[in-house]
This record gives sequence, structure tokens and C-alpha cells, in this order.
Amino acid sequence: MAELLGVAVLGAGHMGADHIRRLDQLVSGARVAAVADPDLDRAKDAVAGLDGVTVHADPLAALDAPGVEAVLIASPGPAHEEPLLAAFERGLPVLCEKPMVPDSTGALRVVEAEAGLGRRLAQIGFMRRYDAEYRRLKSLLDGGGLGRPLMLHCTHRNVSSPPGFTSAMLINSSVSHEIDAARWLLGQELTAVTVLRPRPSSDAPEGLLDPQLVLFETDGGALVDVEVFVNCGFGYQVRCEAVCERGSARIGEDRTMLVTSAGGAREEVAQDYLVRFADAYDREVQAWVDATRQGRVTGPSAWDGYASSVVAEAGVRALESGGRTAVELAPRPDLYADLSR
Amino acid sequence: MAELLGVAVLGAGHMGADHIRRLDQLVSGARVAAVADPDLDRAKDAVAGLDGVTVHADPLAALDAPGVEAVLIASPGPAHEEPLLAAFERGLPVLCEKPMVPDSTGALRVVEAEAGLGRRLAQIGFMRRYDAEYRRLKSLLDGGGLGRPLMLHCTHRNVSSPPGFTSAMLINSSVSHEIDAARWLLGQELTAVTVLRPRPSSDAPEGLLDPQLVLFETDGGALVDVEVFVNCGFGYQVRCEAVCERGSARIGEDRTMLVTSAGGAREEVAQDYLVRFADAYDREVQAWVDATRQGRVTGPSAWDGYASSVVAEAGVRALESGGRTAVELAPRPDLYADLSR
Amino acid sequence: MAELLGVAVLGAGHMGADHIRRLDQLVSGARVAAVADPDLDRAKDAVAGLDGVTVHADPLAALDAPGVEAVLIASPGPAHEEPLLAAFERGLPVLCEKPMVPDSTGALRVVEAEAGLGRRLAQIGFMRRYDAEYRRLKSLLDGGGLGRPLMLHCTHRNVSSPPGFTSAMLINSSVSHEIDAARWLLGQELTAVTVLRPRPSSDAPEGLLDPQLVLFETDGGALVDVEVFVNCGFGYQVRCEAVCERGSARIGEDRTMLVTSAGGAREEVAQDYLVRFADAYDREVQAWVDATRQGRVTGPSAWDGYASSVVAEAGVRALESGGRTAVELAPRPDLYADLSR
Amino acid sequence: MAELLGVAVLGAGHMGADHIRRLDQLVSGARVAAVADPDLDRAKDAVAGLDGVTVHADPLAALDAPGVEAVLIASPGPAHEEPLLAAFERGLPVLCEKPMVPDSTGALRVVEAEAGLGRRLAQIGFMRRYDAEYRRLKSLLDGGGLGRPLMLHCTHRNVSSPPGFTSAMLINSSVSHEIDAARWLLGQELTAVTVLRPRPSSDAPEGLLDPQLVLFETDGGALVDVEVFVNCGFGYQVRCEAVCERGSARIGEDRTMLVTSAGGAREEVAQDYLVRFADAYDREVQAWVDATRQGRVTGPSAWDGYASSVVAEAGVRALESGGRTAVELAPRPDLYADLSR
Repeated sequence: MAELLGVAVLGAGHMGADHIRRLDQLVSGARVAAVADPDLDRAKDAVAGLDGVTVHADPLAALDAPGVEAVLIASPGPAHEEPLLAAFERGLPVLCEKPMVPDSTGALRVVEAEAGLGRRLAQIGFMRRYDAEYRRLKSLLDGGGLGRPLMLHCTHRNVSSPPGFTSAMLINSSVSHEIDAARWLLGQELTAVTVLRPRPSSDAPEGLLDPQLVLFETDGGALVDVEVFVNCGFGYQVRCEAVCERGSARIGEDRTMLVTSAGGAREEVAQDYLVRFADAYDREVQAWVDATRQGRVTGPSAWDGYASSVVAEAGVRALESGGRTAVELAPRPDLYADLSR
Repeated sequence: MAELLGVAVLGAGHMGADHIRRLDQLVSGARVAAVADPDLDRAKDAVAGLDGVTVHADPLAALDAPGVEAVLIASPGPAHEEPLLAAFERGLPVLCEKPMVPDSTGALRVVEAEAGLGRRLAQIGFMRRYDAEYRRLKSLLDGGGLGRPLMLHCTHRNVSSPPGFTSAMLINSSVSHEIDAARWLLGQELTAVTVLRPRPSSDAPEGLLDPQLVLFETDGGALVDVEVFVNCGFGYQVRCEAVCERGSARIGEDRTMLVTSAGGAREEVAQDYLVRFADAYDREVQAWVDATRQGRVTGPSAWDGYASSVVAEAGVRALESGGRTAVELAPRPDLYADLSR
Repeated sequence: MAELLGVAVLGAGHMGADHIRRLDQLVSGARVAAVADPDLDRAKDAVAGLDGVTVHADPLAALDAPGVEAVLIASPGPAHEEPLLAAFERGLPVLCEKPMVPDSTGALRVVEAEAGLGRRLAQIGFMRRYDAEYRRLKSLLDGGGLGRPLMLHCTHRNVSSPPGFTSAMLINSSVSHEIDAARWLLGQELTAVTVLRPRPSSDAPEGLLDPQLVLFETDGGALVDVEVFVNCGFGYQVRCEAVCERGSARIGEDRTMLVTSAGGAREEVAQDYLVRFADAYDREVQAWVDATRQGRVTGPSAWDGYASSVVAEAGVRALESGGRTAVELAPRPDLYADLSR
Repeated sequence: MAELLGVAVLGAGHMGADHIRRLDQLVSGARVAAVADPDLDRAKDAVAGLDGVTVHADPLAALDAPGVEAVLIASPGPAHEEPLLAAFERGLPVLCEKPMVPDSTGALRVVEAEAGLGRRLAQIGFMRRYDAEYRRLKSLLDGGGLGRPLMLHCTHRNVSSPPGFTSAMLINSSVSHEIDAARWLLGQELTAVTVLRPRPSSDAPEGLLDPQLVLFETDGGALVDVEVFVNCGFGYQVRCEAVCERGSARIGEDRTMLVTSAGGAREEVAQDYLVRFADAYDREVQAWVDATRQGRVTGPSAWDGYASSVVAEAGVRALESGGRTAVELAPRPDLYADLSR
């Protein structure tokens, strides 16, 4: 396996630049072959010092650049549909950052295009599935020793929200991770959503409904509750407790070095998702490179990306209406039969 | 303070017998002066070996027995109203186990009778207010260092439910503790309740809706969610996380001796509320005896007992309807002005 | 059991006053009948507001005061021998604070006097034996499920040492608790001691060898190491890990409410032994009162007090010499046959 | 940086095969160019499926194979000296597994040879320096916020010892990790060692002195105690608590998913060092590849390998003699001036 997989990276912003660094310095078996960004200077900066990389303003040009064998899409969500469909046409494997396609109509077009090919090409960037703790929980639930899962209690907290973050984004940007994680952990589709809104924190920007308590029902009769609080002020915390018939399991506790000094016994809390999930991103991209080099496609599918978009849209409607909102999914193509991979 | 407070204990069942033992063997400054139970043999058994105790079938006779200066009511809830009113007539301080009076109409009569006296005589047995961890949390919230509380996440689990336990009792017997604890911790009244019902555990008795997720709204704009699961199979767990504007605090983690052996690192989980809250019961009764001997009445009031009954009734209606149910309280008499004692 | 046990308390300093409060307000079944202190004003202050207490400068006068049925000795260690022997002469049960008698020659005289009576009258105040965590550990070790104990790792830390605290006192005052706890947990005698001295903390008073690492060997082949650090600056920490053939068990971790806020996840550390072991003191005195009223003597014996003094003396010699020092105990009278009560 | 670093791996046993897999599949920027093992079949098996690798029985032949730019030595310790000196002659950077050279005389020859070159070529495989928790602790100690370190309490436990494991190997194989970690964390040399031997566990093989308590003194006046217990039966545990003047810090607690079910709250314990330190090995080799490609040598030095051998030899003598044994190091060449890298 001496040949390195040539990857075109679309998007050279925060996330794209991080993936370029990861492909170059951490991941075994791949190299950056092309990069595309409307801001050409940013694209050039992101690949400074790398050899054999072509730089493009047009994502499709990057797909067609010399040496490109696979695509990593890290541009903003609304820009994903076109290169996904283009990659399908070219038969190129794709790792596409979440959200796959933010609006569910576009997401369904991607599902239908891939289903039309009759084989998977896309892996969606739900990196929690590659986190060691989430995998341990998944494995425990699948093992069945605790019986059927009845409830998931989830927490999703950020230090502060970036400028322009809206109440809807608590659901379609933040909680979208829990939407995928819940579907994957349970192997069930989400069927309804309700959003409860306590009086907002006075530390949240004016007008932002933060925190929220988001409640999902599933087609297996389970309940999922998510506290999402993006201006909690103290850290990045992602926790999940699965309550089963004969036991419960918790992940995501803050567990680092225990320091005892004046003021008590103290453990650091991660400040940023790139810290908390750094290993998950590394494993995700390595797994994608490994599978791609072996001609396989694994991991979260375009259907997972589509379902996540539909649920998030229902969540935003539920936030607005204050009531319970049903989730309506299109029929699932056979290509995506197995939900609990 | 050489004289011991003479206490009439009403009810000699599980709880009554435990309080008799506590008054005799653990609590300083009190003695059991009389005991009443319709089952006279049970009453006699409960005070075997104690001197100077009279035994009665009729609770009111126990109130009038020689040496009785205070009353501890530990009979079944529906039997509480009569002796409460009788104690008020006699000016006797009362410690009344929860529920004060299960139906809110009767509970309101007790409130009005005490308010008519113009002074408090009753303390209601919400013993969590005397638990060291709950007090620490209350003190932290009152200190204000974490800002305003936004949400409480609560867990209430039992190994298994006793025979005859109904779906409504998950709310009016189990969650009633969280109802009081939430009101006390937040210093706010609960204004609405919604009950979500996942598919029941297959280990729960046929027909029992177990677990449930109970959601309360408060007049201060906070949210309280309670997982109640009375056939969890593994232990008695009562946890609470308060999420505030600038931090969160958790109590009720399982924390005993850490044993590491084949199978992993392990900590025992309490099996029974009398184990988990043994100290709280001791402190509650000691505090009541101490206050009574000094002519004072402290702790949870008849209003707290009334409000708990009203909220629990609304919760049972919400369980049946599946929808959000408003809580309607009578006007609060001035006697009970301060909710956050 | 209506009659309260009349107790003479010797010593009205910090510890004596605390025991007076405990007997009066917390312990069931006892009352303070007499108090003695060379400083009569201090004695009077300590019993202000209590009825039926006589106040004495002479401890022996307190033993003979009206209503005295038992004695609690809380005066300084060197003053213990005389009232212990006097109590034995009068057949009075005694609870004697540690050290029973600081010099081992005097301690042996107490052992011999009690052994001469042919029955136990003294309980020594090693209160850790009444701490819930220590009892859990003792019970686990006695159960044998983890096999034979091989090592105990102990930590004993204080915020700061009081004025006049000497290097020897780290052993004969602080570590004396671990000496008794190790003997009790293991049911073995300590046979040798070595003291290692790292370079002292710059926060320790000039000339104080603080911290120290004290190593004990036992007649059962176990090892006990104790870190003693009395100017650690941050809290009062007493921990113990028992390493057995098939597992280990730890107690004394800092475990209170978990508060997460800017700066990390934090738990309070107790600042004072009266906080950490408040319950142990309460249980100790209650157990002594209960046993005494039933005509029994239980708990740590005069032999335990003697053995502790001998080991502590050997420890101080080991500190001075830098080498391994053997512990030489007198033959154990039959009265004290069972070490592992 | 398109060119991959060509590495010769010496030794194709358990550890060598693991490093070959790591270089091929996980590490970015390197490839296996040659492999040597006296057992040629084993060497061939270890590189099955890899392109461009030559296979050798003689390690020096592997050093001279085409494309070899660096060497990773994973053969048994006694076979390390020759290829280390040969790599120095050829100017090849080396990553050498621990022990660098087991006997201190040979180790000193390696130090002198490298010092003679006037520049570092060797990095020694003390992988704990690359473990995230150890690095956090090192960074905390170096920051100085807790004051000067006074003691390290270390635990090193294995499920069971492999066949042929001797009492001396508890020190020179197991504790050698703590020897390096202590030197690195403290930035101090170890000056004396004492070994205490409790009665062995009955689960240890006949004649094996297991567990042991190993005590080190340092030239900075700190103390290091290590419990080493290689037949603890339950897991692989490596813990370290640093006690400083103004606080303590602990790493290596067992912290995974918390599962609560019948029997209590439970966390898994790692069973194997390749699990506990998998990330550390990955980071170590990646760091070595990265530095080598940039023409730099970092990480633990030949001096660290030498000092570790000297201290381990003193430890084995201390185990045999039962007494305190001084550690005598040769003068440190200037090349290794900075101990606290």
C-alpha cells in the first residue's frame, strides 16, 4: 500500500484547514491533492508548505484536478449538494461534513442520486460515531446485557455561541449531533419532537432562546431528551446517559487529571469541540481513508444525513409552535436498510 | 433542658415503627409518650420495651394521653386530615409524614385551619430538605454565585415497585418528593406539568407505565424534568443537577467505597430510601424536636403539603391526557409568604 | 429506658466542649451530670444553660459527683492516667479520648489495672472505627472476598499545623490514628516502623519535618505506608487504600456536590477533622452510651490504647534515627484476645 | 513533505510487529523499508502485504538496506547495544525500545559513543512521556502553581506476570517505567533506593516476591514510592499522584463509561498496557518520525536510558539486601544537560 490516496478538500475555512493539517500530518495513507475555496488566498494559506497540491476557486475544478481520487467536503452546508452530486457522477468517494445538505429537499435529492447508483459513495461527518466513549456505549447497547434502551438523557453545552447564532441553530446546528447519535445508538428513527423553552439565561445574547430542552420520540418507543445550552460559560460538555431496562450507562463525564488545592478537588473541562473530539475526527478521517483505499464505503450514510435534516427541520418548527411536531421521512431506499451499523 | 418532649406517634406501620425507634434511640430530647394504631397489637409491638407509653386504637385518644406535647403523624395519607385539625385545636405541634393530605381539597382545609390560627404548628415530612447534599445544593443556589437556575434534571429510581403500585403513584407517591424539592430549591411554584411515556420496561409489572418523564414549568420560568423509574432493577437512585446561568451542580451521585477487582472498578448503589436518606430522617426529626422544645415551628409548611398535592393531582391528569396541564393553586395565605426557607 | 445516663466530662477545652454539646443535643439516652476542668470558668461556660450539672476543678471530685454513672475523658493526654485508674476503682465505664496515655509505661499500667479487674471498663476514642467508610472497608476485608490484605496506602493531610506542633507530633498525634486504624483493619500488630523524610515543604514552619512517609510492618506480613502532611494548605484529607490479593478498595476520596463552572469541575474538600469525622464522633459516643446503658463495654480497648502508644514511641525513635525500629509490646492479657473486633 | 521516511525495524516479535503495523497504518510520513529478525519467517510474516520492504536476519544488514533513513530497535534488550553503536557510526537517527541497554556498563558505552559524536541521534522508548495524562501532570508541575513536588505516589499493577518473570524483573522491567517517569516529572536524578517486601500474594507464582514497595530518593530531596504488583488479578493500572507544597495531582484513575446495574456502579479497567498506552505509543512514534524528518532529535535520551539502567541495578541489589542502596551515576556529559525536557 505504498500509494497515498489523493484527496481534494473543498473549503479552506476553520474546518477545512483542520482537515488539511490532519490529512497531511496525522492520517496515514493519504495526501492532499487539491483544495478549493472561493477565497483563493485562504486556500493557498491552508496548503502552504505542501507539495503537489493544486488550488482552485471552483470546487468542481478541484474534483477534476490531477491525482484526485476522493473528496472531503468542508465548505458551508448550503454549498454541499452540488459537489456531492458531482462526485457521484465521477464515482468519487466523499467524506462530507455535516450538515450533509441543510434543507431536507436537497438532502433527499442526494439520497436519491446515490440510491440510483446502487452503491454508496458518501460518508457523512457525524464524528461522534468515532469517539471512543460513544463507541463503547453503542457496543454496550448492542450487546443487550442491559435490556432495551428506554431513554437517552443528553447534554450539549458550549462556552458561548458565535456571532449570528440563532435560536433555530441550537437545533439544526448543535442538536443535530444528538439527532444522529440517538438514531445510531438506538438503531431507531425519530418520529416526533417537542421543544421546551425556559426563561433564557441573562448571559445569552438578547433574543436567543438559550437554553432549550428538546424531546424526541422514536419509532421504537424510546424517549430522548437533550439539554442544549450554548452560552453556559464554562466549557464544552457533551454527555449522554442511556437508561435501559436493567441498568444505565453514562459517557461524557469530565475526567482529566484530578488536582486538589486550595478551593477543592478540581478537573479541567474541555473548552472546545476540537479538543473534546480531536481523537474522533482523527479516527473518522483515518477510517475513511482506510476504507476508501480498500474500495469500501462505511460510516454514516447519505440517509443519515437526510434523516438528520428532516428531524432538525421538524425541531425548528416545534421550537416556533411550542407544540409536538411529527417527523415525516420519505421511504427509505434498500441501500440504507441497516440503521444500526 | 432536662425534660424530654413527650411525642404521640400516630401509625405503627413500617414508617411509624421506624420513627418510634428513632425517637427512642437516636434523637436527643424526646421520648415516645403515646402511640396509636387501629391494629393495637402492632402498636404494642412497636413500643415493646419502652416505659411510660400509652397505646391507643384511636389517634385522638393518643393526642389527649398524659404527657403528650407534640404529635408525629405516620399513618396512611388519607388518615392525616383529622388528627392534623385536632392537633391544631389543641395547639399541639405536629410533624406530619408526606403526603400531608393526598386530595388537594382536604389539604386546602388544613392550610386554612392553620392560617386561621395565625401561627404555624405543622411541619411536613419532606425529609430531603434535611439531606446534607440537598442542603449544600440549596445553599449554593441561594448564594447566587452560579446565577439564576434555569433547569433541574432529576432522576428518581427504585429497584422495584411494591404490589399494587399504579401508574399514577409514580407521580403522586414517587415524584411528589421532586415536586417539593424543586419548589424548595428554586423558591418557585410549579405552574404546569406534562408527562411523557416511553414504551414501558418489560421488567415492569403488566400495565404499569414505568418509566415516565415528568416535566414541570415554574412561575420563575425554570424547567424541571424528572425521570421516574420504579422498576430499574439495580438500586435506589435520587440525583439532581441544577443548571444555572454560569455553572451547574450535581448531587446524588453513587459514591461509596471504590472497589477494584476482576470486572472493573465498582461502587455500591443504595438499595433502599431508608439507607440513602437515613441521615436525613434523623436530622429532620431532631430538628423538629429541637424547634418544638424552643417553641418554634420550622421546615416545610402545610402550604408546601398543599401545593405538592395540587401539583401531583395535575400530574396524574397530565399522565392520563398526554398533554400539558396547568396547575391552579388557591391564593397563598400570608402565613406562608416565604417560599424559600 | 427512660433514665438518662449521667456522664462526667473531664476537660472543657475544644474537644471536651464539643462532647458536652454532643451529649446534650445529639446523643440519645445520656445527660451531662458533672464537668471538671482546672479552669473553672471554662468549665462553667461549657455547661451554660444546662440543668443539673456540677462543676469541678478536680477530676476525681467529678467522678464522685451526684448522678455520675460514667466518665468521658477529654482532658490533655498526660492527665488521663489518674482518672482512668480512679474510674476502674469505682467500677465506672469510661470513654477516654486518644492518646489513652501518651507514654507507654503509663499506658501499660492502665492495661494491667483493667486486666486485674478481669473485665473491661474503658473504651478508647479512636473514632475512625465509627466512620461509615472505614466500617465498610473493615467489613469488606473481613469478608475475605478480595483475599488477604497485602498493603495499606494511607494519606493524612491537614491544612496547617497548630503552633508548637513538632516533628514527633506528626507521628504521635497525627499518625496515631493510622496506627490504630491499621491494627483494626488488618487485625494484626505492627512490628516495625521506618520514617522517610523528604525535603520539607517551604510552607511548613521552620524546622518542622513535614511531610513524612511512615512505613509499618505487621506480624501478618503486611506493609502500611502513611503520607502525613500537616501543612498541605488545602484541606483535611484522610484516605486509605487496601491492596489485597484479588482487588483493592479505597475510602476517603473527596466526594461532595460536583460543581462545574468556569475553571472546571470542582468538589469541596473538608477543611477540618470535626467536619470530616463529625458523624463518626456522634456514632462513637452514641454507641458508648448505648452499650453502657446495657452494661456492656465495646469498641477500642485499653490494649489498643497501649499498643498505639508503643508504636508511636517507636515511630518517633525511627524518625530520629532514620533507620528501621522494631516495636516491642508487652505480652497481651487474655482480656484483649480478639484484635479484630 | 511528500517523501516518506524509510525505517528499518529491528525485531519482529510482539513489540516489533506492533511498531510495523503502526508505521504502516497509523503514522503519517513514514514507511517500513527493512526489517530484521533472527527468525526470518517471523520477519516475513510481520511485513506480509507491505511493498518495498527488505527482510534480514542480521540487524546491521537492515541498517544498510536500500531506502533506510532511520532505525527503530524493538529486539530484546541485550541485543540493543550493537545496532545502537552501528547507527551512530552511520549517522542514523534511532528510536530504541526500553531498556536501552540492560546492563549499565553497556549503557554507559552508548552514552559515551553518542556524546563523542557531539550530537544526539537516539530517542529511548519511554512512551509514558507521550501519554496525555502524564504530559498534563508534567506541565502542571513545570508550571509551578502547586509549588515544589515533595513526593510521588505510584502504582503499577498487571493482571498476571508472564512465565519466567523473576522478582528482579518487577524492578528492572516493570518499575523501570516509573524510574524514567519520576526522573522526567521531577527533573531530578534518583540517588538511593530501598525495596520493602510484604508477604507475597498467594496468587503469585511460587517464589516470586510480588508485590513490592520500592522507595526512591532524589537529588532534589523528593521521595518516590512505587507499589509494583504484577499478579493483582484484575487489570493493568498505572497511577501517579504528585504531592506538592500547595496541592496534589493524580493521574491514571480508571475512567471509562460508568455502567450502573445490579451490583453497583462500575467502570471497566484496562487489561493490558497496549490498551492503556495505545495512544502514547502512537504519539511517540509519530513525534519521532516528525522530528526525524525535520532533522531533529527530541524525547528521552541515551542518558535517560543509562540512568534508568543504573537505578534499576541498584534496585535489584536493594531487593536482595533488604537495605538502602545508593545510586552511583557517571558524570553527565554536557550533551544531556537538561533533565527536564
